[in-house]
Amino acid sequence: MGYIVHQRKVKKEFVHVEGCKDTYIQWLIDEKVGAKNFAMRRFTVMPGGYTPLHRHPGEHEIYILRGKALVRLGDEEYEVRAGHAIFIPSNELHQIKNVGDTPLIFLCMIGYERG
Amino acid sequence: MGYIVHQRKVKKEFVHVEGCKDTYIQWLIDEKVGAKNFAMRRFTVMPGGYTPLHRHPGEHEIYILRGKALVRLGDEEYEVRAGHAIFIPSNELHQIKNVGDTPLIFLCMIGYERG
Repeated sequence: MGYIVHQRKVKKEFVHVEGCKDTYIQWLIDEKVGAKNFAMRRFTVMPGGYTPLHRHPGEHEIYILRGKALVRLGDEEYEVRAGHAIFIPSNELHQIKNVGDTPLIFLCMIGYERG
Repeated sequence: MGYIVHQRKVKKEFVHVEGCKDTYIQWLIDEKVGAKNFAMRRFTVMPGGYTPLHRHPGEHEIYILRGKALVRLGDEEYEVRAGHAIFIPSNELHQIKNVGDTPLIFLCMIGYERG
């Protein structure tokens, strides 16, 4: 069975993770609706906020919807805005900071593979 | 190695597939840049255009960025707009039609799994 949802209908949950600031997550598509290979999440990071600097096995594919971000990828940093796509390989160190004056909004898909 | 690209830098390729009309694809993230589990594509469907009515093993996760679409999923049809997320399971019949007056733009991730 397929599944359709508008993001406005999906609860924004505050991300309670060490090293994370002023960030909300919406799980739009995941295992609960039948996705077997990867999940789609929508993040909102408030101005001055950031996701944790971390690494993990699941691959990320990110698409910036709104706002301005500084992306840490390994030892490098890149400024991105709406329309940028970002691929983060398995186990690569990464972090996303809102460096703009408005909420930063992006989609972040994550693979269910484990390493 | 990670990878970052702005969608404007990625060529829009016309989709030459039977049953497809006035549709362009941009491959934003795929195996060529290291993605092992799923790919990210950005579609532009002109007013009156549509993707083919078909089914295939790879799972889809879609996010509507702009415009108005009619989505066929199995035997049902749903109207969607910017902010809608759509999950299409492996081998489910599907089609996306632009039913608005402006270009329909959406992201479509596809898993590399085969059934």
